[in-house]
Amino acid sequence: MIPPETQYDEKNIKIIGAGLIGTSLALAAGEKGYRIEIIDSDPKKQDLARDLLAPFLKDERDLKDERDPWIIVVATPPSVVAPIVLRELELHPHSIVIDVASVKTNVLHEVQRLSVDLSRYVGTHPMAGREIGGALAAQNDLFRGRAWIITNTGAIGEEQAGRGSVLRVQEFIESLGADIFFMSSYEHDRLMAQISHVPQILSTLLAGHLSGSKAEIELAGQGFRDMTRLAASDPLLWSEILVNNREEIIRDLLLIGEAIEEIGAAITSANGEKIAEIFKRGGEIRAKLSGKHGAVARNYQTLHIVIDDRPGQLAELFTIAASIHANIEDLSIEHSPSQPTGLISLSFSPNDGDRMLSELLDKKWKVHTQ
Amino acid sequence: MIPPETQYDEKNIKIIGAGLIGTSLALAAGEKGYRIEIIDSDPKKQDLARDLLAPFLKDERDLKDERDPWIIVVATPPSVVAPIVLRELELHPHSIVIDVASVKTNVLHEVQRLSVDLSRYVGTHPMAGREIGGALAAQNDLFRGRAWIITNTGAIGEEQAGRGSVLRVQEFIESLGADIFFMSSYEHDRLMAQISHVPQILSTLLAGHLSGSKAEIELAGQGFRDMTRLAASDPLLWSEILVNNREEIIRDLLLIGEAIEEIGAAITSANGEKIAEIFKRGGEIRAKLSGKHGAVARNYQTLHIVIDDRPGQLAELFTIAASIHANIEDLSIEHSPSQPTGLISLSFSPNDGDRMLSELLDKKWKVHTQ
Repeated sequence: MIPPETQYDEKNIKIIGAGLIGTSLALAAGEKGYRIEIIDSDPKKQDLARDLLAPFLKDERDLKDERDPWIIVVATPPSVVAPIVLRELELHPHSIVIDVASVKTNVLHEVQRLSVDLSRYVGTHPMAGREIGGALAAQNDLFRGRAWIITNTGAIGEEQAGRGSVLRVQEFIESLGADIFFMSSYEHDRLMAQISHVPQILSTLLAGHLSGSKAEIELAGQGFRDMTRLAASDPLLWSEILVNNREEIIRDLLLIGEAIEEIGAAITSANGEKIAEIFKRGGEIRAKLSGKHGAVARNYQTLHIVIDDRPGQLAELFTIAASIHANIEDLSIEHSPSQPTGLISLSFSPNDGDRMLSELLDKKWKVHTQ
Repeated sequence: MIPPETQYDEKNIKIIGAGLIGTSLALAAGEKGYRIEIIDSDPKKQDLARDLLAPFLKDERDLKDERDPWIIVVATPPSVVAPIVLRELELHPHSIVIDVASVKTNVLHEVQRLSVDLSRYVGTHPMAGREIGGALAAQNDLFRGRAWIITNTGAIGEEQAGRGSVLRVQEFIESLGADIFFMSSYEHDRLMAQISHVPQILSTLLAGHLSGSKAEIELAGQGFRDMTRLAASDPLLWSEILVNNREEIIRDLLLIGEAIEEIGAAITSANGEKIAEIFKRGGEIRAKLSGKHGAVARNYQTLHIVIDDRPGQLAELFTIAASIHANIEDLSIEHSPSQPTGLISLSFSPNDGDRMLSELLDKKWKVHTQ
């Protein structure tokens, strides 16, 4: 009997779909030392991705190796995920197959309809993406520090992937620098409606609402540009995603519609108090989102430090922080240090912040703590 | 008779309101060689702004000069603009008074009610702002390359500012690097509903729609963060703005509500073609917004530098920048404290960026330029 570990090559990753996610994943995995095989139904896309991935591709010698890939990633539009997952499970009986589609319940149900054994299939969703697609937009660090959700791991009413399969997927995802979150497909789809699908719809509608006159285009500011950045997303891919998650999305759209009516009534009746209350709620929830995920719950002390245009002043500041071992948890600059006076905001743990504050005041820096 | 040019000091700018716009304006004008007088009804805010503006403030000698300021800027919330404009017109009979409120028709009507002569009052609106307010957020280049709208310059049914007044304001605004647009108050308010007020409302409602659960907060991606960035805006200021422009806003909210119903129906009936059509329209209009007044106007080269949690690493980085005299124009950190590695993004002028890049690569730092 051949031991199982000789039936797959644990350095080989096969990727189906050379779009943004597939190619970024291939770049990230290639950098980690995996050998990559990438295929796409569109030969032009496949060629482009292989050009970008040249240093990481399986070579001639590898191709003679008939062991199965360690992991196969199906990175295609949601509508074709299930049949490809099934095909790969059959082609490679020792591989684990994952998909990266952004809707999970429908995909899982379709895989279930096609296959009796889901022990080697793991549904996943990397929470990374850009509004521009394709291999050219790929980034090898697209997943670093980002969340990557693993679903169908045994929630009520869902088929369960084998424990060994999940562990293998976990190891792979962690090697790419992503943070793993576990939830059921249903929880996933409900969450995505709120934090991804409905925001996408509003961005698209807001952009479409503009007539596109010269004044509108020329005068739209940064806020409007941020609000409509997602509107550049792929229409066909999004049609699929929205239809696949329609129950959750429709419920959220109804609630948003009601919220618009509510604030509209408050504006019409000049009810400033009510408007301010709605804004306060939005602002409070938004405030919880500041920073990268993982950093959220921390309680920071932020020092706003006046800097002037002496070369090396920033270096001096960071040297002071390093010398008293005060860890800078976050920072932002409030205007350009090339100008006479600027402000830099540094965040610390409360203890480090207190020490940094007194150190700076000792050294006659101007510091505001508000 | 005293010639008019000796009755005002053309190097003196008086600013009422030490918030984001007032302080940024003071910084920008100070840099251009104007001497600044800034006052705020809140003494703490006034002190902070004066700290930041120290190099530019009028000194003792200036204060003895009893000539009127060249221009007086009223940078207060809209509800108090009109009485302050009136007061300043009376106090300084040789100054031009402008306001910078983001609603214009109501403010103009109120000024008209209070004063018979509007020849020295010019309504304006700089299209620059940030979701965070206050002097701490002020930037001396906030207006550079941005649009600045001048209203009440003689449109049908509107009082007309004197031609000399408008020319003086134009000269001042241009000196700050902004691009001037002329339109009537009514056109202004209609446009702002579309490109500013309704986007603000949607951002607020979208943030408020989130229940704020741990998973939601941790998993919200960049798209959601961009869509809700505006939700951090000041509730009281925005209540005022929305009520002041209610006719225009309500019309737009109704149209957005209808658009939500339309796409909702398409999603419910799995009409992918219709959804794609809506997305295509949104995407096409978005594509026209290629950044004249957006962030693109500042041509920076941004280096994304991988850092690990060694103390002193940031100090090292800034010391390198200082040693080669590369000016850091902007910076941000993408770093979750729970993780060993993070990314810091530093922006430079293209020339400084190239030099910094080769210096860092020489020193074996990991740098991404995309």
